[in-house]
Amino acid sequence: MKITDLIALDVRYPTSLQRDGSDAMNPDPDYSAAYVILKTDTGLEGHGLTFTIGRGNELVVAAIQALEPYLRNKRLAEFTQDLGAFYSYIVGDSQLRWIGPEKGVMHLATAAVINAVWDLYAKAQGKPLWKLLADMTPAEIVRATPFRYITDAITPDEALALLERLEASKPQREAEIRAKGYPAYTTSAGWLGYPDEKIRRLCREGLALGWTAFKLKVGRDLQDDLRRCAIVREEIGPERVLMVDANQVWDVHQAIEWVRHLLPFRPLWIEEPTSPDDILGHAAINQALEGTGTRVATGEHVHNRVMFKQLLQAGAVGFCQIDAARVGGVSENLAILLMAAKFGVKVCPHAGGVGLCEYVQHLSIFDHIAVSGSMEGRYIEYVDHLHEHFVEPVIIHNAHYQAPLQPGYSIEMKPASLAAYTYPHGSYWKSVLKV
Amino acid sequence: MKITDLIALDVRYPTSLQRDGSDAMNPDPDYSAAYVILKTDTGLEGHGLTFTIGRGNELVVAAIQALEPYLRNKRLAEFTQDLGAFYSYIVGDSQLRWIGPEKGVMHLATAAVINAVWDLYAKAQGKPLWKLLADMTPAEIVRATPFRYITDAITPDEALALLERLEASKPQREAEIRAKGYPAYTTSAGWLGYPDEKIRRLCREGLALGWTAFKLKVGRDLQDDLRRCAIVREEIGPERVLMVDANQVWDVHQAIEWVRHLLPFRPLWIEEPTSPDDILGHAAINQALEGTGTRVATGEHVHNRVMFKQLLQAGAVGFCQIDAARVGGVSENLAILLMAAKFGVKVCPHAGGVGLCEYVQHLSIFDHIAVSGSMEGRYIEYVDHLHEHFVEPVIIHNAHYQAPLQPGYSIEMKPASLAAYTYPHGSYWKSVLKV
Repeated sequence: MKITDLIALDVRYPTSLQRDGSDAMNPDPDYSAAYVILKTDTGLEGHGLTFTIGRGNELVVAAIQALEPYLRNKRLAEFTQDLGAFYSYIVGDSQLRWIGPEKGVMHLATAAVINAVWDLYAKAQGKPLWKLLADMTPAEIVRATPFRYITDAITPDEALALLERLEASKPQREAEIRAKGYPAYTTSAGWLGYPDEKIRRLCREGLALGWTAFKLKVGRDLQDDLRRCAIVREEIGPERVLMVDANQVWDVHQAIEWVRHLLPFRPLWIEEPTSPDDILGHAAINQALEGTGTRVATGEHVHNRVMFKQLLQAGAVGFCQIDAARVGGVSENLAILLMAAKFGVKVCPHAGGVGLCEYVQHLSIFDHIAVSGSMEGRYIEYVDHLHEHFVEPVIIHNAHYQAPLQPGYSIEMKPASLAAYTYPHGSYWKSVLKV
Repeated sequence: MKITDLIALDVRYPTSLQRDGSDAMNPDPDYSAAYVILKTDTGLEGHGLTFTIGRGNELVVAAIQALEPYLRNKRLAEFTQDLGAFYSYIVGDSQLRWIGPEKGVMHLATAAVINAVWDLYAKAQGKPLWKLLADMTPAEIVRATPFRYITDAITPDEALALLERLEASKPQREAEIRAKGYPAYTTSAGWLGYPDEKIRRLCREGLALGWTAFKLKVGRDLQDDLRRCAIVREEIGPERVLMVDANQVWDVHQAIEWVRHLLPFRPLWIEEPTSPDDILGHAAINQALEGTGTRVATGEHVHNRVMFKQLLQAGAVGFCQIDAARVGGVSENLAILLMAAKFGVKVCPHAGGVGLCEYVQHLSIFDHIAVSGSMEGRYIEYVDHLHEHFVEPVIIHNAHYQAPLQPGYSIEMKPASLAAYTYPHGSYWKSVLKV
């Protein structure tokens, strides 16, 4: 199978109109995707996307186009016969590396492209991505993992040993996942732009649907936070789980002080308390919270495996929030899952946005079957926006993601959605912008 | 004075033809600039650029264009009356922030734009940038500095105290700089693509010109490195300074082992031994080299003040290599200079590329006059490429940068150079590419 063309689309949804997704750092996101379609000579297509929140999406689309020479006219088998080499190849252009390396716009583009190749591979094998990964041998997973810059934290041999200890019991965990699904928490009730009564109503609706863990955005105003935390705790009761998320608004000392005020509401974690680059800052915050029951969580803006490595080495996080499209796609997430397992830190993926739920369910299911071997105390984020645009949207039953069964990475958008929301010439934007 | 237009140009020089700039990570760079011109209603222009090595330069140009609404039709005085707020304003678009934040393509673009505003400000004041900065009061410098995310390392009050201790003695250091210039080292002899005999010849030519410190690229092959280090040490003698630079090619343990082999040649520093993101890795390497006389240096790929903060907090570097256009321009470099002074780490800027020498001389001169108060053991990198394209190229006498005297940031390129090397439609590229 040969890749004959790469199409990159700028897809934007006008979510800012409803304040969906609003938080202390991001008041009015327009959930967007820099979207890739790999055409092949068999008719099969690989789809991938990276998530942004609006302006600048065009830069990521342009960066995807800059990677096009690395994909066009290549045979899929060239990539899949050595997936580790494939990763190095995609991130290895020395000139493009300068404007990263492995971070920012260029790495977001890398994620979309690498995920599109994995989607194509899974479709070619007729398996959902999680099953493709779960069926790979430990040696194959190790070979697909980029170890550059992380061998001081985990060697290929250590990774192999870690995977081999779970190899024999994979079938029973796969059966468990197929029967029960993977636990989720909901962020839908707690956006910062929502009035108190809407939060209260959404908590009640969430409880009725079986949700047991709820995340609330905090960090704009302490009195607001205290009032909003009280509402959620009152609605969900003392036993269910509350998480809080500050979206990077604080400096280190400020974070420690602010979070102390929220401790009476017993949040499981404080998410993104400060700059995502601040390994030592997160470590200081996590240490200050030692013994309180609240731990630091971060990851959605942690830009590559080198940063995750350090968060783990420094004891900076209690929860590792991988993102499917901030780092270099499935390939780099293998490295992060392996490190998290070695360091004994729970992986609770970032999701929401557009397509991130569809993506990360595969990674968590694979993590459970083959890497961590446990779902204990782990949750995938769930946000109920924009799933209607996907050919195979996520299915949630009783607050659990149900294992996707179609071949691929579940990230393919409906043709009608692409046609309407491609910016600025799709039919929706044309009518709004009068372009 | 009002900014009436922003022009962004993609300027590329075909340096790969000569292997100038070749190193273990970057075999064939085409030194390039994403170039900004701010037009004003007075005729005065602010110029700024960021440096890349070729492909991808178009992405940075597009990112500069994405910042255009933040500049056009703004009055210069709006920015200069609160330069700290100006920094927050330029990096503060919540949607553009998502594709950074403050890193990669978006932050390279930020650097060009912020530097162009500082260039315009210095021209409007009729002073070279270093003099504009040196004449600002401690309170004004503190006000111009972005402190977000670094207050756990330095507070505005600490910065103020640090600046005030040097305030009275600024005139004598300014006089010293005007008389002697600022010390430099040369990288021109040691590119990885140069054959041994060229290195030997360039060392001799360098010595004849008065150079006392020489940098050599290493990291591709250990036997090559041993032979090349021996050549340089043989040519420059035991007393002069040798630095070595690996351009990020090693993992942490490998770096420690490789550098041990080079210690007999007594390098002052090992530059970029591993991933620029690896704070803890650099700390481990620096610690392993404790007592050897060789210290770790890094900075040209350190993407913002939060990363520099941690390198300093972790004791990871003996030399802090600021870059004029990787971080958010003059503004963010103020924060880095202040932190380096507080932690007692010497600032030895990264230069070379195109325009970086022209830029960083201003920052080091200001550092000497007002922040560190010392040139002891400090050097600015010097590379003798592409200076002919600048209206006010750097002047080196006896291995010292001579203080630039024209108003502005010395970064304005000659109109003929812009016309020839704008990619792909400038006259040079047209003739080569036949477009």
